[in-house]
Amino acid sequence: KINSDRLWDSLMEMAKIGATAKGGCKRLALTDLDKQGRELYIKWAEEAGCTVSVDQVGNIFCVRPGEDMSLAPVGTGSHLDTQPSGGKFDGVFGVLSGLEVVRSLNDHGIKTKHPIEISVWTNEEGSRFAPAMMGSGVVSGRFSLQEILDSCDVDGLRLGDELQRIGFAGDVPVTGRQFHAFFETHIEQGPYLEAEDKQIGVVTGGQGQRWFNATLTGRESHAGTTPMHLRKDALLASTQLIQKVEEIAKAHPPGCGTVGFVNVMPNSRNTIPGKIEMSIDLRHPLDEELSAMDQELSDFVADLASQTGVAIELDPFWYYEPIHFDQACVEAVRNATAKLGYSHMDIIAGAGHDACYVSDFAPTGMIFTPCLDGISHNEIESTTQEECEAGCSVLLNAMLTMAEQ
Amino acid sequence: KINSDRLWDSLMEMAKIGATAKGGCKRLALTDLDKQGRELYIKWAEEAGCTVSVDQVGNIFCVRPGEDMSLAPVGTGSHLDTQPSGGKFDGVFGVLSGLEVVRSLNDHGIKTKHPIEISVWTNEEGSRFAPAMMGSGVVSGRFSLQEILDSCDVDGLRLGDELQRIGFAGDVPVTGRQFHAFFETHIEQGPYLEAEDKQIGVVTGGQGQRWFNATLTGRESHAGTTPMHLRKDALLASTQLIQKVEEIAKAHPPGCGTVGFVNVMPNSRNTIPGKIEMSIDLRHPLDEELSAMDQELSDFVADLASQTGVAIELDPFWYYEPIHFDQACVEAVRNATAKLGYSHMDIIAGAGHDACYVSDFAPTGMIFTPCLDGISHNEIESTTQEECEAGCSVLLNAMLTMAEQ
Ligand SMILES: NC(=O)NCCC(=O)O
Ligand SMILES: NC(=O)NCCC(=O)O
Repeated sequence: KINSDRLWDSLMEMAKIGATAKGGCKRLALTDLDKQGRELYIKWAEEAGCTVSVDQVGNIFCVRPGEDMSLAPVGTGSHLDTQPSGGKFDGVFGVLSGLEVVRSLNDHGIKTKHPIEISVWTNEEGSRFAPAMMGSGVVSGRFSLQEILDSCDVDGLRLGDELQRIGFAGDVPVTGRQFHAFFETHIEQGPYLEAEDKQIGVVTGGQGQRWFNATLTGRESHAGTTPMHLRKDALLASTQLIQKVEEIAKAHPPGCGTVGFVNVMPNSRNTIPGKIEMSIDLRHPLDEELSAMDQELSDFVADLASQTGVAIELDPFWYYEPIHFDQACVEAVRNATAKLGYSHMDIIAGAGHDACYVSDFAPTGMIFTPCLDGISHNEIESTTQEECEAGCSVLLNAMLTMAEQ
Repeated sequence: KINSDRLWDSLMEMAKIGATAKGGCKRLALTDLDKQGRELYIKWAEEAGCTVSVDQVGNIFCVRPGEDMSLAPVGTGSHLDTQPSGGKFDGVFGVLSGLEVVRSLNDHGIKTKHPIEISVWTNEEGSRFAPAMMGSGVVSGRFSLQEILDSCDVDGLRLGDELQRIGFAGDVPVTGRQFHAFFETHIEQGPYLEAEDKQIGVVTGGQGQRWFNATLTGRESHAGTTPMHLRKDALLASTQLIQKVEEIAKAHPPGCGTVGFVNVMPNSRNTIPGKIEMSIDLRHPLDEELSAMDQELSDFVADLASQTGVAIELDPFWYYEPIHFDQACVEAVRNATAKLGYSHMDIIAGAGHDACYVSDFAPTGMIFTPCLDGISHNEIESTTQEECEAGCSVLLNAMLTMAEQ
């Protein structure tokens, strides 16, 4: 039995850091607010008797000792960073569920064979620094430590410098981390559990993703004196690309395609835009479909450039193929759910999660809980104390099962 | 005879203030760089014997005395502010042509019956603060002083505060200004003079303009977990609006339609954009055509909102009808051009100019000179010393004609 009030109170307490007008959170990776969130969490973890360490990419690991410290820990965790218009639960729920597991084990004086380890992964959101899931990606070996430390935000601030600045450039090596098993609890962020009226999603895998930067270069000129047929309007060209991204996604259900970031230059009312920088995000649960979407995008970009006279660079800087979670971990989640009497369904994660990268090197599973109207990455993101209690209880049970094996 | 080298040297000297990498200028209205530009100009005007004053909206007036100081001056002038990706000549050429007229009159010891007055108008570009031609618009009575002082840039900085900050909140009243006649010299900023191989454009009027702010409000949600059919993507809706602006302009030749400014919120790669703020700029030389364009835009916006479920607010915050310059002033320009032997053609201004607002209260004309490839509002904006000499010589002659009447 976990303490549902305590979990909820901690969620609400954490949500004060970076609280926004509409009830959400803005706690971008490696900002002062992220630092505050991390520090509050470390205080809580230490109060719960954990040993805290920080690795070279700023991931935080809190260990509750097991009976046999030579064994790899059973891990859980998620992230504390948010979107610019983020909610109170995305990521935080997974971290504080881990903390609640430790607190509950303490309450009941339960000793586990394996140690229990809670991780807070650096920059999961991929909003301030792209791509996403950087901290877990470095530990899994998908990214080199150096490339991640050298990545910059839109203002040119370097991730490695920001880590130093907020005091989270740790010295624990990013290599060699092991988990006996790893579970991540997360709100679904989509509409399926709510539509099917299920309390728990047993996550069997995650869809694949391809992220791109597109740069369109036309020619700046005067909005009042440049005849329509003599323009090279980079913004106008970008509208076709944005619409194509939607068209591609719709042609490959249940794929998704999104342009979330657009930077217009010089962004002056009476100057025809000369340059556009934009993001493209394509996703699909099947790799062959995702490849087809990628191909359609590249073909279109070539055509668009030749039709409009606007030069287009397409940089496919991130790809990860659909992943499948470990059978035993998925089974442990399903069994815990059944044992506790929660309604449940199998589900594929639409978002990327740190667990997806952890599954590269450790048996991994995930537990989803519903969120109101399936809305996330929005200040109004909402879930109930009961829903959180269910997710955290399943986590506790699944971890306990694995911690004794 | 004007001193063409001196005019060119002054242009090149002024262009150092806010010089950009590609050879242009970024000297946005009421920034520190605008202050520097204004101070350099005032120094030059005082050295040329002018009396300098500044009005309540920051317009600068430099007077060279006439024989009869009870007469209204013959005026000229333009602006020193630029676009974010501006050139060296837009505006500055008109101001420094005025200065060169005074310097040349001094060289030749010419006394004029009417005083000569050079004006530098505040925020002509309308880029940092919208709309354009604010300084001349206040003096003409189109805008109230208070509404202009209260207008804010995208960072929320108030124009009145910025004027104070740079030391150009003067005390000369904005009301009651008179000109016996007014001429503005400006690069064409478009392709027609070059296409027709003419040295001088005799400007007979200016096309009308309608400026809008559009705000599109959809719903932020997650790029990976929100099925395509459940989205309210404000950016996607904006692409249709941007394309419609182009379509409307093309359906009303030689009208222009431009979206130059787009602000995407929250502008995060993996969040579906929830809100877009964008500008729309429609222009046409015929008022009835401009009204039809306006109507088509409003109709489309209503349809788009109901089709997409994205709420759209359209704020038509600026309109000025096509204007016609004073017959006698146009004639004075045409005669000066013919007398000096320059090839010329009549032309309508595609851009808004301070002269358009001055023509509300004084007989006004304009002189255009070619610019390379018709490109302006671009760092590569280019014109030659000979072209500038021609424009300034015509200005001197037209002003002299009027200054004796
Ligand atoms: N969980 C989550 O929102 N992750 C952000 C990375 C993604 O866009 O999938
Ligand atoms: N001359 C000029 O570029 N004016 C700016 C106002 C406009 O957009 O027409």
